Amino acid sequence: MNAPSQRNRGQDKAAESPTLEDVAERSGVSTATVSRCLNNPSVVSEKTRARVMEAVKALGYAPNFGARALAAKRTNTFGAIIPTMENAIFARGLQAFQEELERNGITLLVASSSYRPELEDKQIQSLVARGADALLLIGHDRTPDTYDFLEKRQIPYVIAWVHDDNEARISIGFDNRKAMKLLAERVLDHGHQSLGLISAQLEGNDRARHRLEGIRDAMKERGLDPSKLQITETQYTISCGAEALATLLHSDPKPTAVLCGNDVLAAGALLEARKQGLRVPQDISITGFDDIEIAEIVSPALTTVHVPHSNMGAGAAKLLLAMRNGEDVEQSVELEATVVERDSLGNAPT
Amino acid sequence: MNAPSQRNRGQDKAAESPTLEDVAERSGVSTATVSRCLNNPSVVSEKTRARVMEAVKALGYAPNFGARALAAKRTNTFGAIIPTMENAIFARGLQAFQEELERNGITLLVASSSYRPELEDKQIQSLVARGADALLLIGHDRTPDTYDFLEKRQIPYVIAWVHDDNEARISIGFDNRKAMKLLAERVLDHGHQSLGLISAQLEGNDRARHRLEGIRDAMKERGLDPSKLQITETQYTISCGAEALATLLHSDPKPTAVLCGNDVLAAGALLEARKQGLRVPQDISITGFDDIEIAEIVSPALTTVHVPHSNMGAGAAKLLLAMRNGEDVEQSVELEATVVERDSLGNAPT
Repeated sequence: MNAPSQRNRGQDKAAESPTLEDVAERSGVSTATVSRCLNNPSVVSEKTRARVMEAVKALGYAPNFGARALAAKRTNTFGAIIPTMENAIFARGLQAFQEELERNGITLLVASSSYRPELEDKQIQSLVARGADALLLIGHDRTPDTYDFLEKRQIPYVIAWVHDDNEARISIGFDNRKAMKLLAERVLDHGHQSLGLISAQLEGNDRARHRLEGIRDAMKERGLDPSKLQITETQYTISCGAEALATLLHSDPKPTAVLCGNDVLAAGALLEARKQGLRVPQDISITGFDDIEIAEIVSPALTTVHVPHSNMGAGAAKLLLAMRNGEDVEQSVELEATVVERDSLGNAPT
Repeated sequence: MNAPSQRNRGQDKAAESPTLEDVAERSGVSTATVSRCLNNPSVVSEKTRARVMEAVKALGYAPNFGARALAAKRTNTFGAIIPTMENAIFARGLQAFQEELERNGITLLVASSSYRPELEDKQIQSLVARGADALLLIGHDRTPDTYDFLEKRQIPYVIAWVHDDNEARISIGFDNRKAMKLLAERVLDHGHQSLGLISAQLEGNDRARHRLEGIRDAMKERGLDPSKLQITETQYTISCGAEALATLLHSDPKPTAVLCGNDVLAAGALLEARKQGLRVPQDISITGFDDIEIAEIVSPALTTVHVPHSNMGAGAAKLLLAMRNGEDVEQSVELEATVVERDSLGNAPT
């Protein structure tokens, strides 16, 4: 619960957040015009609107006075924005995140961006406007505007599900490229020469791009031409995984092993293989990524990459709590992801 | 986005929401004491704390002045509280809910209560304090305090996933009892006489209780003794479903058909049956509920109840938007749930 006694403190400090007046001053229009731009843009000229929106962005203004007042005090509410709730890939990590927060008296609110950066940007603004003390975000890919906004509003955030030495932001996760390389090596160990990949959309998804690079790394090291990797990009659903396998089976040469960007796609690929009368793994090998529950209930069970969901979620909560408490958090945390061999990977057909 | 121009209006109307002072006056203590009760209860005597909390509840006070100010205006943020994100049972409905809201410029924030009423109560207070215009809730079961709070704060809400003629609150959903009765009848049509049920915890979960009643209704109608139904209550996870089947297989008489409270439990039961060398459906029939994607990827595919996820989610959004816009919504919406027969239900072994 919050400290109502901080009400006055909150109001005194409210000036630290940009105000409607600041936006009006910077864009050289009246506050009424700024208000119209934000609430009823169709009645404002395109030119005025562009000028006002430029000022809104430059100042990091969130059009909500509640947030401005709240910025100076804790709400004990954290936000998380995940790309999807439609399948369970973020569920276990998020559950661990929430449990750790709850032990510290924090309520978690979650938004789901459907892998759309512009929607995520809106949701971040909304969570900040609603007074979220800190945010959990998935992966580094997002618009510069979003990062600008977070910086200007000084909202602590942690990036999860990735570890990328090239990025300076504080993150907790595993190296997607290294993890997928390990799995690809295991596939190549089974004698497969012709590989396929069913991937999530690569644009705006650093995890997906790194997984692709991991396969290419492994192919290169084994003297295979990485440009021969057959790639299909699709959405993270079972039916998309099934369709994508059907597409890959039309390519020449036909892949003998299909690596999937996650377990959900792999479950779909298994369904399609069964439908086409292909035996897994005798006729074709199929692998997943994530090691969520679905990996064990499909038949054959999936060879996949085990992602440290719970440690990642709980660790992200600890990092965010430390940041919110004003401690210096300087180091990203790298966790291990390991290959789990089950029955969906076998030797290449001879 | 919000109307910053409403800032003053918001402040003028703030008095409509209960203040810290109101709580102090009603409980006959200083505002500092109220503040301590809310923020550092261990330093306050139990008696004082009880008196203050009584006043907090009676007044519907949310300890956050931001919320009080926001109560007088729209934030274009709706909240949803679902019992779990750990599996996909609410995912598709929630996605449809979010998409309909998005078309109307509303951002959705979600909280997950882990089926715990006291946590849900906290999350509702937090969403209201953060300015949510309206709420989606699952099922009717929750504490009277929670309903009191919603009423006092005049937050529009819709109950989803149920239709129960005995409840006056506006809801959109299907009749869980009727739906499960239909499925149980189908099971009995296959000659099964000895039934088992793997159910979610019945307390605090009206959907689970109604599903149980539906099975009993069907048994009664066919002249079977409903007290003979073997029931195991557990959590909604795959591994719990597996354990629960193992337990049921020790009961006497051993059930020849096991109905599961949802598809996730049924997937677990299938795994356990396979582990024990039982063929489904030749040796034992297993059914699900929900018809989420998992129902089709397990082997054999699940006979289950198809829940109108998308219509329910989109419909809930429409109802809430109407309420938020001040329209009179007087009628709950009942949707159909239908039985889908796949391969996991067969004739009783002879």
